[in-house]
Amino acid sequence: MFKKILIANRGEIAVRIIRACREMGILTVAVYSDIDKEALHTQLADEAVCIGPAAAKDSYLNEANIISACVLTGAEAIHPGFGFLSENSKFAKMCQECNITFIGPDYTSIELMGNKAAARRLMKEAGVPVVPGFEGVIDNEDHGVSIAKEIGYPVMIKASAGGGGKGIRIAFNEEEFRKGFNTAKAEAKACFGDDTLYIEKFVEKPRHIEFQVLADEHGNVIHLGERECSLQRKNQKVLEEAPSTFLSEELRNEMGEIAKRAAKAANYKNAGTIEFLVDKHCNYYFMEMNTRIQVEHPITEMITRVDIVKEQLKIAAGLPLELAQEDIKLRGHAIECRINAEDPSKNFMPCPGKIEELYVPGGMGIRLDSAAYCGYKIPHCYDSMIAKLIAFGQDRDEAIIKMKRALGEFGVGGVKTNIDFQYSLLEQEEFLKGEYDTSFIGEKMVIGNA
Amino acid sequence: MFKKILIANRGEIAVRIIRACREMGILTVAVYSDIDKEALHTQLADEAVCIGPAAAKDSYLNEANIISACVLTGAEAIHPGFGFLSENSKFAKMCQECNITFIGPDYTSIELMGNKAAARRLMKEAGVPVVPGFEGVIDNEDHGVSIAKEIGYPVMIKASAGGGGKGIRIAFNEEEFRKGFNTAKAEAKACFGDDTLYIEKFVEKPRHIEFQVLADEHGNVIHLGERECSLQRKNQKVLEEAPSTFLSEELRNEMGEIAKRAAKAANYKNAGTIEFLVDKHCNYYFMEMNTRIQVEHPITEMITRVDIVKEQLKIAAGLPLELAQEDIKLRGHAIECRINAEDPSKNFMPCPGKIEELYVPGGMGIRLDSAAYCGYKIPHCYDSMIAKLIAFGQDRDEAIIKMKRALGEFGVGGVKTNIDFQYSLLEQEEFLKGEYDTSFIGEKMVIGNA
Repeated sequence: MFKKILIANRGEIAVRIIRACREMGILTVAVYSDIDKEALHTQLADEAVCIGPAAAKDSYLNEANIISACVLTGAEAIHPGFGFLSENSKFAKMCQECNITFIGPDYTSIELMGNKAAARRLMKEAGVPVVPGFEGVIDNEDHGVSIAKEIGYPVMIKASAGGGGKGIRIAFNEEEFRKGFNTAKAEAKACFGDDTLYIEKFVEKPRHIEFQVLADEHGNVIHLGERECSLQRKNQKVLEEAPSTFLSEELRNEMGEIAKRAAKAANYKNAGTIEFLVDKHCNYYFMEMNTRIQVEHPITEMITRVDIVKEQLKIAAGLPLELAQEDIKLRGHAIECRINAEDPSKNFMPCPGKIEELYVPGGMGIRLDSAAYCGYKIPHCYDSMIAKLIAFGQDRDEAIIKMKRALGEFGVGGVKTNIDFQYSLLEQEEFLKGEYDTSFIGEKMVIGNA
Repeated sequence: MFKKILIANRGEIAVRIIRACREMGILTVAVYSDIDKEALHTQLADEAVCIGPAAAKDSYLNEANIISACVLTGAEAIHPGFGFLSENSKFAKMCQECNITFIGPDYTSIELMGNKAAARRLMKEAGVPVVPGFEGVIDNEDHGVSIAKEIGYPVMIKASAGGGGKGIRIAFNEEEFRKGFNTAKAEAKACFGDDTLYIEKFVEKPRHIEFQVLADEHGNVIHLGERECSLQRKNQKVLEEAPSTFLSEELRNEMGEIAKRAAKAANYKNAGTIEFLVDKHCNYYFMEMNTRIQVEHPITEMITRVDIVKEQLKIAAGLPLELAQEDIKLRGHAIECRINAEDPSKNFMPCPGKIEELYVPGGMGIRLDSAAYCGYKIPHCYDSMIAKLIAFGQDRDEAIIKMKRALGEFGVGGVKTNIDFQYSLLEQEEFLKGEYDTSFIGEKMVIGNA
């Protein structure tokens, strides 16, 4: 096992990784930007190295400085967390070239799954259902229009290099297509430096259900069940739960096996997530694979009792999985609410600032993954998520009750948060019945200019 | 089920009870003393009533004011928590007379088990092993000396009305007996208003192992396994774990059945704890019954998944237990560290004051039961415990690792705490081996004038 690793991230996920390392006896090196000198991950790690100014491109995306910090401190491996460099195959390759273990899959797998069109082709070949679409090169707008007509509207235009909901447009007719095609192209260029687009059938009102997989270097692949992530606002997940109320045991097993097949096809090693779109007729389609730890991984941990970050570390160190598929028994129900410093009444505008007062919920069945503390200044330049509140119950009703109780006692002063929004989400009839899809928040919960 | 209850307590246990109520849809009334206006329990409850000045005798022990608050707010029942009025049979009787449900056993059971000599006699009759001792009235010092000689030194002199380690003396010979007898008598008078003493064989280096029982009004009695509470300082528990490393499955079952027999003999209803002394030869002796919720109840909750406070409420409302003995399966291992505002370097002197900085641990397997928050002023007039940190692991090693990790990241500024002391306790070889008894902390951990 590693003696020391570097964590190329910040916030709660950096703290989460430090916790796993500490419990495994691994020393940790934090990296931080100027503005994160007082951040919790900087304080909690065994060592901390400043890697640049506040802007992410100069610090948390500064590959050279991160590699230098790793070499300087003698860390053997880098855990990229999520976001930032976590799905950057070039960085993963750079680590390999510097003889540093990248705690994640091989860079070739990242590259492969990072190219949405290529991933789609691969999955199709492997017998993983994909949304009907066009995999070739789109010459121009007119070519796109003819492809869209062939697939049949509505269609979705996506950036091949995309992720996080960027570079996506939906078109119900030719006019919308032409408009969306050009804006998506521009956005893809701006966000990913690559304006390649692809087109697929738009699945209306789908559920977003994803499977957690673990794959080691010895050919073992297992899945840890699914996460229901349909509660999204502008393609950003808001609340996740596991298991999904929508899957029968039979469908769960079937999709789980398909997820494993997808991971094998990508020659995937480490923890990864296969995201599916599921329509109301239980048809499921591969959407994409996230080749990293996910924000919402704790809910899977709660119902499987598997520490996914520790598994990542063990896999990266070359150890074989100790768990076989039959060891994975789902038990109980878990919900995660992402607590963001944002103002729901102002279109969820991020609200950075100083946390003047803080009371965090606790007690039985409550887990909090957070890097926030009283007096902490939430910087303006990063993600607005300040905590992940996770509730576990013997069943879904109990998990909901516990989450409401915990949200009710969560006190944050000094910055606005979405705590009340999350609470009201838990009170919606559709949520209580488990009858919701990815359109729910946008259509039912967000008033006005969302 | 109750619609509204009053919580006659403060601090983390009041918050713990509010949490259970909120999850059950029961409204809560907090009571608070002048100095507790900003306390968390006061803030979190649905209603809050001031019941007097800071001194406990004028507020949290002010029976009339508490009953008035209950009547005034229309609460149907009173949960006494632990300490304060929780084992006061007169108060429990007063509740009954006022048609208020006391969430605990009948006052006659409290009275019976509160009188240590009477409880001992009852247990002996019921076939529950007790430490050899004298149950009659001790006429005077000389009479005591002859009893002690008959039992054989070392002997223990205890206040009949005692509890919490008060009014206890140990004598290894006649001289020590004479001295101890008189000081114990004076202390018993001062603490409990009753100087009746009793004498029993002093079990050397025993373990303190207690069994949690639940008994309803319909004759059902179950036990939830044991808690190992031998890590004590001056008879105050410091760290507890469940299960005990010392009990075989056979002995666990045997003692559990004996604990149920003890509860039945006391005609006990509600949650209660049978405390045993266990010597190195696995002989066990009934020590006392605590007729209330215990500080350390969360570790039992973690390994049984039973919410004991909710069970208390259900039993008090007359509902039958839904759990049978065979439903109780112990799983994993839990440890609780009591986090106190105290200075271990100054003989654990309480350190009230303002919490200027606070970072509480979280993540997988960590539960925090606390009423502390940043900016909270810990009053000088109550208990110094500010939090209970609970770690759960699949096995004892994992629970220890998680507890060390959590203690390591627990940050409290402004007041001194025993966090580092707890950490060093977890590093002791004897602790790691599970080979310790009630003398361990006093003999091995406390340097100087302890």
